[in-house]
Amino acid sequence: MLKSEEGKLIILSGPSAVGKGTVITALMDEYQDISYSVSVTTRQPRVDEEDGVDYFFVSETEFKEMIDNDEFIEWAKVHENYYGTPKKCVEDTLASGQDVILEIDIQGAAQVKKSYQQGVFIFLAPPSLEELEARIQKRGTDSQKAIEVRMENATEEMERAENYDYIVVNDEVEEAVEKVKSVIIAERCKVD
Amino acid sequence: MLKSEEGKLIILSGPSAVGKGTVITALMDEYQDISYSVSVTTRQPRVDEEDGVDYFFVSETEFKEMIDNDEFIEWAKVHENYYGTPKKCVEDTLASGQDVILEIDIQGAAQVKKSYQQGVFIFLAPPSLEELEARIQKRGTDSQKAIEVRMENATEEMERAENYDYIVVNDEVEEAVEKVKSVIIAERCKVD
Repeated sequence: MLKSEEGKLIILSGPSAVGKGTVITALMDEYQDISYSVSVTTRQPRVDEEDGVDYFFVSETEFKEMIDNDEFIEWAKVHENYYGTPKKCVEDTLASGQDVILEIDIQGAAQVKKSYQQGVFIFLAPPSLEELEARIQKRGTDSQKAIEVRMENATEEMERAENYDYIVVNDEVEEAVEKVKSVIIAERCKVD
Repeated sequence: MLKSEEGKLIILSGPSAVGKGTVITALMDEYQDISYSVSVTTRQPRVDEEDGVDYFFVSETEFKEMIDNDEFIEWAKVHENYYGTPKKCVEDTLASGQDVILEIDIQGAAQVKKSYQQGVFIFLAPPSLEELEARIQKRGTDSQKAIEVRMENATEEMERAENYDYIVVNDEVEEAVEKVKSVIIAERCKVD
């Protein structure tokens, strides 16, 4: 009657600096019924990062083997490093009946969509592009040039929001978390 | 980008005694962004009932005029009395951007579906038919014969749950309220 007992794959994406990480961290704090998928990367761990918790850290050779063995739901090369979402972890968790959330950029989400049409695609949007720029400026980690590139990307990405199932505006984090949580609860009540 | 600014029409239905009224009362307590549609009836007001709050009380002649003027979203004759959902109230509220919730039986919901395909149809289900019967027994207002009729109807009605958009199981009222609330919030984030 209700959708199958399999967990749901939730994809949260949106432009850089919109607050995906913050929203997911807050969501997981108050909502234990969901797993966060740990990504695989070839980049070096930062001092506070733990293998298997923050990322699975692998060599480039291992990563490329995983690509060849079709072990990723999606992967990308960003600057010099590879990042990917491992298929097996996600599928095992879904099969056990638990939901999985992926924090993923818009290109990655498009890749996931190809093999997981039944995924729940949520676009996290800034209240406005001006507000997004203000957030990037405030973070203070980007040069003016880099900010311009980010903003150009964001403008393009915003146009792709309509390909998603849901749009959640991240104005106040608490409200955004409640909305994402509501989407997950509602999706579980949805009739197939 | 998001669905239009018009409010959403939420239809909550389910078998008799499943707890629709309790869920809606609790929902309205903690969630002010939604209006409850007051029905029109020809039955006599009970001592504690107020015209325009619990029902709009009208004469049978007035009710029949309203039917002729197509002023109802749905209406029904139950025993000797008429009950109906007035179209104008609902449409004015939706146009103002506020959501409206209708508590309605399954036949009524089917009528609403014909003219409001864009409505959000939620089926409130008991955890089991046994539990539903236990609740009716506990209420102590029905004869054994009446309980049997209710249970026959409920069995048939449960089969129609799949025509709804969402099924919410009313096991614990608090949880059911959270689920209905989540459906409403999620529907507001849905991409058209």
